[in-house]
Amino acid sequence: MRDELAQFMQDWLPALETEMQTVLSSGEEAVHGHYAMMQYHMGWLDQDFAPAALPAGKRLRPILCLLACAEVGGETGRALPAAAAIEILHNFSLVHDDIEDGDETRRHRATVWKLWGVPLAVNSGDGMFALAFAAMQRLAGRGVPAPALLAALDVFTRTCVALTEGQYLDMRFEQRSQVSVDEYLRMIAGKTAALVGGSVAVGAYAGGGSPAQAQALQRFGQELGLAFQIQDDILGIWGDPQVTGKAAGSDVLRKKKSLPLLHARNHPQTGAALGALLDGEMDAARLPQALALLTQAEAQAYAADAANTHFAQAMNALEAALGSQAAASRLAAVAEWLLARQA
Amino acid sequence: MRDELAQFMQDWLPALETEMQTVLSSGEEAVHGHYAMMQYHMGWLDQDFAPAALPAGKRLRPILCLLACAEVGGETGRALPAAAAIEILHNFSLVHDDIEDGDETRRHRATVWKLWGVPLAVNSGDGMFALAFAAMQRLAGRGVPAPALLAALDVFTRTCVALTEGQYLDMRFEQRSQVSVDEYLRMIAGKTAALVGGSVAVGAYAGGGSPAQAQALQRFGQELGLAFQIQDDILGIWGDPQVTGKAAGSDVLRKKKSLPLLHARNHPQTGAALGALLDGEMDAARLPQALALLTQAEAQAYAADAANTHFAQAMNALEAALGSQAAASRLAAVAEWLLARQA
Repeated sequence: MRDELAQFMQDWLPALETEMQTVLSSGEEAVHGHYAMMQYHMGWLDQDFAPAALPAGKRLRPILCLLACAEVGGETGRALPAAAAIEILHNFSLVHDDIEDGDETRRHRATVWKLWGVPLAVNSGDGMFALAFAAMQRLAGRGVPAPALLAALDVFTRTCVALTEGQYLDMRFEQRSQVSVDEYLRMIAGKTAALVGGSVAVGAYAGGGSPAQAQALQRFGQELGLAFQIQDDILGIWGDPQVTGKAAGSDVLRKKKSLPLLHARNHPQTGAALGALLDGEMDAARLPQALALLTQAEAQAYAADAANTHFAQAMNALEAALGSQAAASRLAAVAEWLLARQA
Repeated sequence: MRDELAQFMQDWLPALETEMQTVLSSGEEAVHGHYAMMQYHMGWLDQDFAPAALPAGKRLRPILCLLACAEVGGETGRALPAAAAIEILHNFSLVHDDIEDGDETRRHRATVWKLWGVPLAVNSGDGMFALAFAAMQRLAGRGVPAPALLAALDVFTRTCVALTEGQYLDMRFEQRSQVSVDEYLRMIAGKTAALVGGSVAVGAYAGGGSPAQAQALQRFGQELGLAFQIQDDILGIWGDPQVTGKAAGSDVLRKKKSLPLLHARNHPQTGAALGALLDGEMDAARLPQALALLTQAEAQAYAADAANTHFAQAMNALEAALGSQAAASRLAAVAEWLLARQA
């Protein structure tokens, strides 16, 4: 199955890239720079706007979109515009997140705002946002009928709204000392999980899936997204530095409000002590003390339980969508692969 | 006819406001602040998020949208979601423009970024952008059939893309000493005219207009938008300060690259002298010299000619859309009123 997935990606990633390049471009010389900033962010141009093949994202969401199309019985290529739209939307959100978080690098390259300033970067991100919808419109040219296209656009639009709600909560929580576990789960439901859910739902509509199938697949993606983020949270603290490329306890050092930390911070036995630690400077010397409190709160087991619960709910939703084929489907295989990853 | 238009606005503006309020809200307490920033910008809340009825925009574009729906024979209320979408889109662009231009006030109130910071303001604008598409989706609930809705969404999406292109050019031109008249017209085609064109086109589709009618109305709006912006440019220099509320020669004082100024700046007889003047400090003492150069280049007449030409082209397009009813239509009346305004 691992080979089958690798083959699927090898078959479809180049076409996806071509589809995105078609949407994120203009033949008009006057606005070349507007599109070139987007193309830089996507890894197709370097900072002098010369062609390049630079580190890009994993294209995970569009792969899920294409697989959803195929698994409901559609011709995979029909979902290419939706897959492109999902990945463009994801990258729009990264361009604006980098501005909002003040991040100067992404994928070892300077961010768009760092190179061209906040005003042009905000507007370039807006262009990508608009072009994500333009990408969706191209489903009509692939023979997707009007009702399915409208349903896909509706899901896509709701996904966009959910993304901005999640980002709002994330920024708000950064400014607060105390955040509950439920608040955190609500935040990642918008910021991370909604887009995974949207990816498979629009793929399902493009592939001719029924509304019931698309909705079940959306739940699958939503739950998978939560499990994925929580797994990410675990790796951010207990991941093997040699595999993740990050320092041991990385997320604790930067006081990231991830699920394990919030669990211990809200735990009756460790909350006060961890709160006091986090109020001060956090460095390698204090890290063992913080990690000991996380262990006392059984934070890793708590988070692993939560990830497993959401993964199980994802698999239930997948079965609701695909019936007896669910367990042997490529969507199940991707889900298992995502949860088993160590980086 | 003036009374008829006033009556139309009185009949429909409250319903438009209600439609926008429905879209720009959420029943979820956790994300209240995200929506409250949008509602502040719209003039419905004050900066403490208490209900208010503060100075809002003129709602010009949604009125054009509703009129287009009515003039192609549709029931006006069917276009309300599209009119709301257009006005929300316009306001999204204002929230981001204020960030990009560093403007601290709008309509005599602090801008969103000034009150809540750039990160939350960028994201709040993104929320409005997404919700503008959500507003469009509500056309389905008003009985607009799928093909018309898809056509309207296509125009709406292209309009969004054009807006970002226009804003890109505007920012780029601010950084340049020399801009040609053609470059300027290309910029306002994206930044101002595209949205006016989009407004009437989506209204026409909502009202059951044919694609040919909608396209002709889009040209009408596009040309009207150009005429409107050029008229604005004229008033920005030669408007009566007692009517406009701005200083005489206001746009020259702030060296705004508007059509009259660019005409004189590119004119063989006045270009060099005006360029030299604009390279230095511009104040009330130097204003008469600059205005004399504009007079020498016949800049006001040039701009008035351009406005009249675009207005005539708008009227031609209106006739293509509405036939013999064009001249007596409310769209023609609004267009005449817009061009005759003195502030």
